[in-house]
Parts: sequence; C-alpha cells; structure tokens
Amino acid sequence: MSAQSTDIHLRKLRMGMVGGGEGAFIGAVHRKGALMDEQIELVCGAFDEVPERGRAFYSKVFIDPERAYGTYREMAEKEAALPADRRIDFVSIVTPNHMHFPVAETFLEAGFHVICEKPMTTSLELARQMRGIVERAGKVFVLTHNYTGYPMAKQARALVQEGKIGEIKKVIVEYPQDWLLTRLELQGQRQALWRTDPKQSGPAGCLGDIGSHCANLVHYITGLEIDELCADVTTFAAGRLVDDDVNVLIHYSNGARGILHASQISAGEENNLKIRVYGDKSSLYWSQEHPNYLYLYAPGAPVQIYRRGHDYLSPMARLAARIPPGHPEAYIESFGNIYLAAAASIRAAESGVEPAERLDHPGVEDGVRGLAFIETVLESGRTRQWTPFKEF
Amino acid sequence: MSAQSTDIHLRKLRMGMVGGGEGAFIGAVHRKGALMDEQIELVCGAFDEVPERGRAFYSKVFIDPERAYGTYREMAEKEAALPADRRIDFVSIVTPNHMHFPVAETFLEAGFHVICEKPMTTSLELARQMRGIVERAGKVFVLTHNYTGYPMAKQARALVQEGKIGEIKKVIVEYPQDWLLTRLELQGQRQALWRTDPKQSGPAGCLGDIGSHCANLVHYITGLEIDELCADVTTFAAGRLVDDDVNVLIHYSNGARGILHASQISAGEENNLKIRVYGDKSSLYWSQEHPNYLYLYAPGAPVQIYRRGHDYLSPMARLAARIPPGHPEAYIESFGNIYLAAAASIRAAESGVEPAERLDHPGVEDGVRGLAFIETVLESGRTRQWTPFKEF
Amino acid sequence: MSAQSTDIHLRKLRMGMVGGGEGAFIGAVHRKGALMDEQIELVCGAFDEVPERGRAFYSKVFIDPERAYGTYREMAEKEAALPADRRIDFVSIVTPNHMHFPVAETFLEAGFHVICEKPMTTSLELARQMRGIVERAGKVFVLTHNYTGYPMAKQARALVQEGKIGEIKKVIVEYPQDWLLTRLELQGQRQALWRTDPKQSGPAGCLGDIGSHCANLVHYITGLEIDELCADVTTFAAGRLVDDDVNVLIHYSNGARGILHASQISAGEENNLKIRVYGDKSSLYWSQEHPNYLYLYAPGAPVQIYRRGHDYLSPMARLAARIPPGHPEAYIESFGNIYLAAAASIRAAESGVEPAERLDHPGVEDGVRGLAFIETVLESGRTRQWTPFKEF
Amino acid sequence: MSAQSTDIHLRKLRMGMVGGGEGAFIGAVHRKGALMDEQIELVCGAFDEVPERGRAFYSKVFIDPERAYGTYREMAEKEAALPADRRIDFVSIVTPNHMHFPVAETFLEAGFHVICEKPMTTSLELARQMRGIVERAGKVFVLTHNYTGYPMAKQARALVQEGKIGEIKKVIVEYPQDWLLTRLELQGQRQALWRTDPKQSGPAGCLGDIGSHCANLVHYITGLEIDELCADVTTFAAGRLVDDDVNVLIHYSNGARGILHASQISAGEENNLKIRVYGDKSSLYWSQEHPNYLYLYAPGAPVQIYRRGHDYLSPMARLAARIPPGHPEAYIESFGNIYLAAAASIRAAESGVEPAERLDHPGVEDGVRGLAFIETVLESGRTRQWTPFKEF
Repeated sequence: MSAQSTDIHLRKLRMGMVGGGEGAFIGAVHRKGALMDEQIELVCGAFDEVPERGRAFYSKVFIDPERAYGTYREMAEKEAALPADRRIDFVSIVTPNHMHFPVAETFLEAGFHVICEKPMTTSLELARQMRGIVERAGKVFVLTHNYTGYPMAKQARALVQEGKIGEIKKVIVEYPQDWLLTRLELQGQRQALWRTDPKQSGPAGCLGDIGSHCANLVHYITGLEIDELCADVTTFAAGRLVDDDVNVLIHYSNGARGILHASQISAGEENNLKIRVYGDKSSLYWSQEHPNYLYLYAPGAPVQIYRRGHDYLSPMARLAARIPPGHPEAYIESFGNIYLAAAASIRAAESGVEPAERLDHPGVEDGVRGLAFIETVLESGRTRQWTPFKEF
Repeated sequence: MSAQSTDIHLRKLRMGMVGGGEGAFIGAVHRKGALMDEQIELVCGAFDEVPERGRAFYSKVFIDPERAYGTYREMAEKEAALPADRRIDFVSIVTPNHMHFPVAETFLEAGFHVICEKPMTTSLELARQMRGIVERAGKVFVLTHNYTGYPMAKQARALVQEGKIGEIKKVIVEYPQDWLLTRLELQGQRQALWRTDPKQSGPAGCLGDIGSHCANLVHYITGLEIDELCADVTTFAAGRLVDDDVNVLIHYSNGARGILHASQISAGEENNLKIRVYGDKSSLYWSQEHPNYLYLYAPGAPVQIYRRGHDYLSPMARLAARIPPGHPEAYIESFGNIYLAAAASIRAAESGVEPAERLDHPGVEDGVRGLAFIETVLESGRTRQWTPFKEF
Repeated sequence: MSAQSTDIHLRKLRMGMVGGGEGAFIGAVHRKGALMDEQIELVCGAFDEVPERGRAFYSKVFIDPERAYGTYREMAEKEAALPADRRIDFVSIVTPNHMHFPVAETFLEAGFHVICEKPMTTSLELARQMRGIVERAGKVFVLTHNYTGYPMAKQARALVQEGKIGEIKKVIVEYPQDWLLTRLELQGQRQALWRTDPKQSGPAGCLGDIGSHCANLVHYITGLEIDELCADVTTFAAGRLVDDDVNVLIHYSNGARGILHASQISAGEENNLKIRVYGDKSSLYWSQEHPNYLYLYAPGAPVQIYRRGHDYLSPMARLAARIPPGHPEAYIESFGNIYLAAAASIRAAESGVEPAERLDHPGVEDGVRGLAFIETVLESGRTRQWTPFKEF
Repeated sequence: MSAQSTDIHLRKLRMGMVGGGEGAFIGAVHRKGALMDEQIELVCGAFDEVPERGRAFYSKVFIDPERAYGTYREMAEKEAALPADRRIDFVSIVTPNHMHFPVAETFLEAGFHVICEKPMTTSLELARQMRGIVERAGKVFVLTHNYTGYPMAKQARALVQEGKIGEIKKVIVEYPQDWLLTRLELQGQRQALWRTDPKQSGPAGCLGDIGSHCANLVHYITGLEIDELCADVTTFAAGRLVDDDVNVLIHYSNGARGILHASQISAGEENNLKIRVYGDKSSLYWSQEHPNYLYLYAPGAPVQIYRRGHDYLSPMARLAARIPPGHPEAYIESFGNIYLAAAASIRAAESGVEPAERLDHPGVEDGVRGLAFIETVLESGRTRQWTPFKEF
C-alpha cells in the first residue's frame, strides 16, 4: 500500500484527532474537510474527555480500535512510540477552548505538527506562551479560521493587495446567529454547555466563538491592525455567564473606521458572516452564506460580481477552487482548503521540498492577535471607554 | 371647474412650494409625489433664493407666472391676500435646512398648513421653538421623513405592534451612500454645496442628512426611545466642514442594543438604507432599495417574505399601496403617501370631517426628537463618551 | 394661468380619458403616470360604459363635472366643439380591448392624438385597419407597452444596439402571474370579468393580456422578427372561454431560438416578467419586479450589474430616470415615461419644433405586430404545428 | 485495522473506480464525495483508457500501485480473485458515456455493486438491456443524478408528496451553461472532446449531458411521467456533431404543461439548473447555484423560504444535511449523499440488515427513463412534431 510509502509526497498524511467524538460539531467538519481531498487519512484519536466514550468512537470513524485512545496524553505517548511509517504526522485539536493549550503543548513537544481550533487559548498570556512553544518546537502550527479558506475571501484579499479598493476608509464586519437566543445550555445541548461555560470557553462567549472570526477575517482581507476600539458587550440571556452579543466601534491604524458586531441572540439568523470593505476607489462585499460570489462596487461604474472558479481570479482564489464555476463549493470545502494548506506546509517542512504553489493558512500569530482582540473588547466593555488595542 | 368647488372634499388641494427650483433635487420629488395621486395641484411657489430665477421657474412647472414669487415672504403675504377659493391650502418647504424654521414660522403664522423637509431645524433649541409655534398655530405640520411612507415600513411597524417580533433586543439600521466620497462641493454641485456648508445645513452633515432618517425609521417601526449612545463621528474628506461618516452604538430605554451607521463616503453605495429589528420571537429586515419586500425571520421556521399589495398585510400597509402585487412601487410613491396623509389631515382639519381611514405621517414631535438625536451624537463624538439622550 | 397659454411648450397638455372609472385598474395607473411629471393635466373623460357612473366619477378625479361625459362619442363631439385653448390635446384609451378600435377611430377622426392600451385591437384585420386610420389622420398614436418605458429596458436595447451582446442566439422571455388561478370571473371581479370574456378581450386571454407584452419587449430590446413558432395554448380553469397559459417555441429570422411563456395560473407569481437575451459575446437579464437593475453576463468575466440613474448608461436610459441611483423608480414611472414621450411627440407634432432629446414610445406598427403574434400563436396552438408568422 | 473487519457495518466500504484519471472532471468529484463522509475508501482503479496513464495515476490518489490497473477488464478479473476482505465492494464508473454499458455489465457479472454516471447508456435499447442485467445480477445499481442528492431537492419532493403544492399544473425546468459557446473541442479540451463526439457521448450532446438531469429532477420531485413532447433541438456551433441547445414543450400524463430547456451556448451562464413547480395550491422554486434555499409561493400568503438544516424539514431533507443551518453545503456534498445512500444500500444488501433510515438514490429505472427521454426529444426535433414518449 502506498500509505506505507516512506516518501511523504507519495502517501497520504496520517492525522490523529483530539476531541470530535459523539455529540461534537466541529470535529466531524474537520474530518470531512481533511479527508475529501485525498491527501490525509485519519488513523487515531482521543475523541472524548470520557475515555470509554472516546475509545468506542473508533467504530464511527472506522479506525483501528487499538488507536482510539482514552486520553490525549496516552495518544501522544503511544503515537510517538510507533515506528515512523505508522505514527501520525499531525494532530487536529477540536476540543473546547480550554484544552487547546495543554493538548497543543503536549503534541508539539512530542514532535508532532498541530492543527488547532480557534480561539487559540483562553487568555492573551497563554497565547503568548503558545507562540513561544511553537517557535521552540519548530513545527507547523495551523489555526482553523476556516473562513479565510474560502476562495472568494482569498479573492477579496487579492483585490485589496492589488490596490483595486484603494486606501481603506471603513470596514463593516458582522456575524449574527440565533442559536443561543434561549438558554439552550440548560437543556443539556453539548455545544451550548461548553460554549457558555467560562471554565471551558474562557471569559468570552459569542465574542470568542464568532467575534474572533470577524476580527481575523478583517485582518486577513485588509491587513489592517486595530489601534483602539469601543465595545458594547452584552449578556441578554438572564443567568448566562458569558456575553452573547457584542458591538464594537473600531479605529484602525491607518485611520479607517470600523464596525464589528457579533451576536448569538439575533432571532432567525443562521451563520450570517458578512464583510464590507470601503476604500477610496471602490468597495467589496462578501457573505459567507453565499460564498461563491464577491461583489465589487465602484462609484459611477456597474457593480461587478466575481464568481468562484474563473480564470480571471487571483492565483490563490483559483487554487482554492476544486470544481468549475456554477458548481457551488461551501463550508466544508473551506476547511478542506485549510487542511490542504496544512498538508502542503507539513510535507514541505518534513521533506524540505517546497511545492510549486500552495494555499495559505492562519497560524500562531493570528492566534495571539485574536486573544489580544478578545481581551481588548472585554476591557472596553467593562470600562465603557475607547481602549487601546493590547500589545501582542 | 371643480377646482373652484368650495367643498374641500370635492376639489384638489392647492399647494405652494418654497425652494425646489432649478438644480434642486428634492423639490421635484415632492411635486411628483404630490401630483401623482390627483389630490393636489401646484399653484404657486417661491422656488429660488435668487428672485428672478425663482420667478422664471413658472414655465417649468406650468403655473401662472403671477404666482411664481420672488421671495417666500412675498408669497406668504400675497397668497394670504387672495380669496379663499384661490389661495393655497398649504406650503411645501424644500429649501436648505437653515430656511426651514423661518419659512415654516412665516406660513404657519399666516394661517397655512405646512409640509417641511427634514431635519426640521438646525438646532434642538429651534426645534423646540417650532413645536411651540405649531401648537399655537393649530395647523397641520408634516415632516417628510418619506421612508415611513413606504408600505413595507408600515408593515414592519404593524408586525412590531402586533407582537410578532416580541420584546426587541437589538436594532441595526444603516444608510451608506458614496456621493460625497470626493469633495464634490468644490465642483459647484448645488446639492453638495449647501449640504456641506454648516451655515445652510446646520452643524451636522451626513448625520443630519441621512443619519436622521435612520433614527426616525427606528422610532417609527419600533417605538423605542434612546437612553444613551456612543458615537464615532468622522470627516473623511480633508477640509470638509461637516461630518461625512457616523457610527453609533445605542442603548434603548427597554434595554435593547442598537447600531446605527450612516455614511456618504462609502464607495459604490447608492442609497442603501436598511433596517433589522431583532426581538425575542423573530426579526424583520427591510431594505429601501428593494422596498416592496419585508423579511420575517423566526428561529426554527421558514423565512417569510411579505410582499407589497396583498390582503394579508396590515390596514396601513394596504392603504399605502396603489397597485397590485408585482407591479413595483418605489421612492416617489413614498413621498406620495406622505402627501396623501397630509392631504387627509388638512381636509379633516379644515372640514372637521375625519375620513374613514387615512395614512399616518411624521410631525413636529418627530422633528424635535430628530434634533435631539443630532445634538446627542455630535456631543458624544466630541467627548468620546457614552452620552445620555438630550431631553426633548 | 399658464394653462391657457397658447404656446404648447408653455402649458400642460390637456388629456381626456376613455375608460378608467370605478373598479378599473389600469386607468388610475395611466392618470398617475401622466400627472406625476407636471406635463399633463386631466380635463375630461368618459370613464364608464354606464353613463351615470362615468359622469359621477368627476368627483374622484376633481375635474369639471361638465366634462365628465356619458359616452365617448359625446366626449369626442363636445371636446371638438370647444375652443382650441380649452379642448383636449389627446385622449387616453384605457377601456377593455374591444373598445380600443372604435374609440381610437372616433378620436383620430375628430382630430385628436391618441394614447391606447394594448393589445391594440381584437384581430389582426382590425389592427391593419387601425394602421391605415392612423396614417390617414396624421396624428400621434402611442401604444402603452409600458415595460419599454423602464430605464433598464432602454439600457438593454442600447447594449444590443452597441453590439455588446453580439449576434443573438437565444431569447427567453416569461411572464407568469397567478391571479386567474381560480375562476375569479365567477365572483364578479371586474378585471377578471372582461379579461376572460372573448367579446371584450378578443380571442386571446393570457396571451393577449401579458403574452403580447413579452413579444413586444423582445422586439423592443433585440429588434428581432419572428420567423415561425410552435405554441402550446392551454385553458386550465374549467369553463373559462380564453387561454390562461401559453408556452411558445420560437425561431427568429436571424436563426436565434426563443422561448416565450406567459401564465395567469402560476400559483404565487405576481407580475414576474423577465427577459434573457443570449448573444455570442454576452447575455443580459432584466426582471420587471426588480426593475432598477440590468445584468450583463460575459463568459470568463465578472458579472456586471448596471444600475438605474448612472452617467455610464445610454442616453435613453439616462433620460428615462427622474431621480438619482438607489432611489428606486418603478411601474408607475414606466407609464410616466410613455406619457413623457407621448407629450414630446404631441408638442413636436403641433408646433413643428423637435425637442433636443425625447424618449421613444411604441406605436401603431407595434400594435399590428402584436396582433400578428396573437393570431399566429392561436393558430399554432390549434393545429399543434410549427406555424409561420402572419404577415403584417 | 478496522478496515479489515469482516463485519461490513464496522469497516469502510472499498471502492474501485473506472475512469477519472488525469484531465477528467467528474471522477475527482466522485472521489471527494465518496471519501468525505468516512464511509468509503478508494482502493483500486482503472483510471484511464491509456493503460500506462491509468497505472501512473496511483500516486495522485495514494493507492497501492499494484491496484492501479491498465484496463477495466483486468481490474474486474483481479479484484474478483482477491480474498473477500481485500477486494472491492463496488465500482464507480465515471467514463465517457459509451463505456458505461460494457463496464457496468462486466462488473455486475463479476459480482460487484455498481455506481454509474449518467446518461446510463447511449441508447434506449442498451438501457433496457442494462435493466435486465441488473435484475439478473441482483446487485445494487446507483445512477449518479447527483442533483437529487441535494437536501432541498429532497424537501421539494417532500412538499409535493405532502400535498403542499396541490395538483401540479405546470413545471419549468432549465439548465443553461456557456462552456461550449465556442468549439472548445477543437482546442483539445478533454471534456469538450468526448462530450461532443457521438461515438463517446451517444447521439445527444447537451441533451444527454444536462437535459437528462432536468428530466430526472422533474420526475424525482413531482413523480410525473411525460405523455408527449415537442422539441426544438439545435446545434449552434458550426461543424459540431451533437446538439448544444434544446427547448422542449411537454405534456405530462396528469395534464400538466411543461417547459424544459438546456443549453451549453448561453453566454455567461455557469451551471444554472433551476426548477419551478406550479400546483393549484402553491408553487416551489429551487436553484442549484443557491442550493440551500427552497422557495414556496402560495397565492395571497407571504413567500416562505425553507433553509437547509432545520428541524422543520422532511426526514429525508434533514438526513441529507451534515451541518447546521447557515453553514452552506453544496455540489460535492450532493455526490456525497448519493454515495452515502449507495453505501447504505450495499451494506443492507450484503448483510441483510436494513438501517433505521437511509437516503434514497436513483437507480436503473431512472436510467431507462432517461434514455427514453433522450430518444423522444431527438425524434421530435427531427420530425418537428409533438411526439409520444417512448415506451420504456
């Protein structure tokens, strides 16, 4: 079997997973995204905080029962002890937030590459430590801000870089959902439970869960850094321990103005991430729920809609599309693109051979910036003041 | 001719206009809206601050040259001196902002009803005075916040009042345009000239011109009053004397959170007024550029799109539609509805006979609230602080 | 009053109306469209086939009761007898179809210009006769295919004429409605009554009412003539005497293929006229329910959306817009544009002075072509054969 | 490894592929769809008609080079000779059309289940033979009309079955593309080459490639059978040997009227499959390019938009969604759903254990109906006559 090839370019990469067992949401998305492009196979996991539940999960993902581990520590140890042609190449961490740090630290120090869910840690201090660990380990570290994996987000970035937008004056990014409109956490829904529990999610609720995607997407597309911000942080659901609605005014360092809002109590909203970037030449608009289209508006000219899959797109946007125009790609494919980028980085790191072209992916620096954003917003919300962005 | 009928219910109302001559924008819209529904005829005007230009304008609107006056004062005087079956019933004021107060005062005191463009005055203090004058005059006073004239804005209001939305938690209203992205005022464009000149527009630019529509529309649909707000008020165009971009975080008195933003430097935007109201039952969305549709989103239910012209709509929304579903109505018709409502109010006031049903319209109280909004935003922008809403 | 000016360029044109009384639909639309642009005033009418009802209607439209006539013949006679500075300039015919011919003939022969609803007559033979009458009378004859009055329909035509689309290969035009899904005519609804009564509507139902708009719009935008067609003509509602659903395959004379379908039994459809024109360079798409946008699709290029009101549009599309981009215009304004075009034609005809620029409008030739279309479709439906287009 | 488990419910199914090598389009889509859901692994293939090219392809899909075969006959033979715990469970046939029959026949007779691309064969006669072979073999046969795999296509079907639409009166289905606007086949593009070569594609071009999807989707959603049809079949590109544009009028056996059109020369169209079904109660609309939304229009009621992923959907539509509302799914996932359904059918066939619930999939009967459709359309196009649907 080619899977045993010793040439990392002639075999699938071997992935292990921490988290993602029964009742999880994002773990299955990671597996689908990772597997769909024929570059990666899942070979082991520590899928659940309850060891027996995690071990039993092997039958759902059709792996060797021997490699469905009870704990992530056991997994790191036993995988490290396997021969090179069997052990994993990397681990994918899809646990609640508070476990990102210890799991990532363990696997990085055991010599594995890491793909990690966001937010990277539960505090800016831990995020800075993670950056140090990654640097010392010299391993690939990928943060799954998956929205940057969409082809048209890449096209948006390219339009900014090509100067089509001009000097940026205003950025509006928004991410309303409604799934926490009521106290779903009281009904035992697992996603709601950990995401509203500060011990697992960290001090931010909605802000960390989806607000952090907004801030990351703005930075990805525009390259802008935040200078200061003024935040209105609210918990609408009585008794909930974390925020569920966040509205922020922003001053970017180039003088641009920004609005960022995220909500998990906005009735009828599904996953409505949208971004608008206004420059002095033109503006762009992208909506995650209709991801194959990017709108460019210039004053006094017809609107232009860029569509996924065309040759007129930037190299990165073209590379991120699998299939021709009009055959829509979507959310899982955006994870697939992060995994394709990660696989290319890992193969390059292991072999020293850089591929002709490869997709980009977010990394540890994005993770630190994300925690700085979270902590600045929380402070501004508390003090009701314009607050300088935390150093990171 | 029936136009000479002494029964105000059996003749068209006679309108005079102040402003709206050559090069004006909104005056022609008022005339089209007023005339289209066969209830009103234009009989006189003082169309321009330059008397000769105003008098010459008679030939564009096909009125008696004798009644194209050089000044509004002349017009008020001479019209008041005409016999009852010839003189105007009301004046429509479509001048730059700084003239709203003196013209309205003059005509109210001369015994005429008044329809006035927004913002009502250039200061909260003058707005309060206007309220007193209107009360003393006992005349009909209509403020043309025309967006409240759209059938689906009325339907939105009805849905809130019927409890379909539930307790309101969040309101997002936005109004981006791009026409002042560059310093159009330096090229002599008349609209840009007066709208960026504080002596004519008052202290607010974009904020008064379109931000005031946002605040009014929120109040119209939701009935909410603002408790406090935190504003980011910017002038992007170097050398411009008024704001051209405004972003505001809002706390409504029921605890709801709000975002309001308006801009005249947002490249590629035309007249993109949108409102979203989120309650604990469902949310609604309306966009002025696609005005015949109102979206209702409830968690866990199909989206509903209400369409103009149907019997299932509220009485007020039905009354505001002229033609069947699918035959779109738009901007001019929204003015038409304000004029229909004004005509009904004037006929009722003059005859003491209330019609079976009539459309609503904004009035002097909306004008005072609007100026309180403008002054609170300007103060918050200056102080960079959350600021309590001005008493009005 | 300037209305009495003897210079036709310095006064409003005087319109009379035949039809359009109580319970009518399109008459009021004509009046609103005619009045809104300050070029035309309504001075008389024969509004109803029941004389007393027609005479009483004066109080709804605020005209002199003396000029609310009992019959169109009385109106033609009495108006012709009035002095030149009082009598109408033109008549607007908004009756059921079977009256178009006799009314138009009467007024043309009495020396008046005519604006007439479509379809022009109830047979191709009568349509040819009408053409002769118009030619002999030497008067302006305008047919209100109002969809050609929309600015973006004019832009579509301009794009074809400029060669942007290339050689046309396929045209799809459709017009589904649902208002005759049930036998509304049995409930006494006036519109349904006459439109499903062959004695009033002519032999075509849906086909004449809206199918004729489809064929006209294709011709207006593309200039193509039909070579042959194959039609499926159906009456779904049991007992109804005219068609309510029509589907047609078309061969245009340049070899282009076409599909044209119209329906009044398509549940949930309002007034969903859409047209797509595919050439060898690009294609265009326009939808009447969203009339301010025109889409241009070229292979391998971003989609372009042309928006109403911009300087980049063709002269005719610009001329057809009253207000700036983003302030939507709609259905009534499309009639307004037909009336503006008619007014310009009438003034030019009367004065011999051609204006610098004026809008176009459909005329008698379009009416004859329309009846040829109707009769060809009916024959093809009956014979179930590809049928050559009737000579006209 | 669990992959060696002898319990077919505890291991991934083993897939072989015929076709899908370098330069192919749909083969990669099949693999992504098959692999993404963790139920299937690719273990062998005969990927190319050129044996060496096919064998070299192992390194792109990371399979054992021993199992990258030179021909499909070699593959069938050698796989059949492998032990039960290594050999494939099924073959996926993604070759040009003319090979579907011989490859399927070979594998069915060798005892393997088959998943086959559409159109099933190149003639109705061969399709009938295939039905016989499948029946005799007693194996699972799946036809990848993937559009039936979309959740909202399943919801559309459910709405029809629940009676929400009522008695169906009209169906409009369309599928315009532009990729064959020019003679791409002359530039050596592989997809264009075989799809326009009657020896590989069969006698139908656009008709077989995408017209067949239209007919299948109508049948899937409505259950209607065609009674007779009248077709306009055109080849626009000079010298091309198959049709590239097809327009069809249809009479369904319940009396409903239909329009079906497909085109590969419609400039600017990507993959714009749309369907509208009009009943006497309401109508539905679905567009493949925006697949997560299904529109329901009822007369005199707000439009309803059903959105993918919600509990209010039918069981089949819910089962076909992987991720929550607002996280869009798309084209590859529609193939994934066909493969999930196939995997469930295969496991049930092999084990005799029916799962609690499983997705549906098209089969050999759909294939025969598809060829009857193709041959009827071609005959009608040739004869220019209404033509009864071929018996099948």
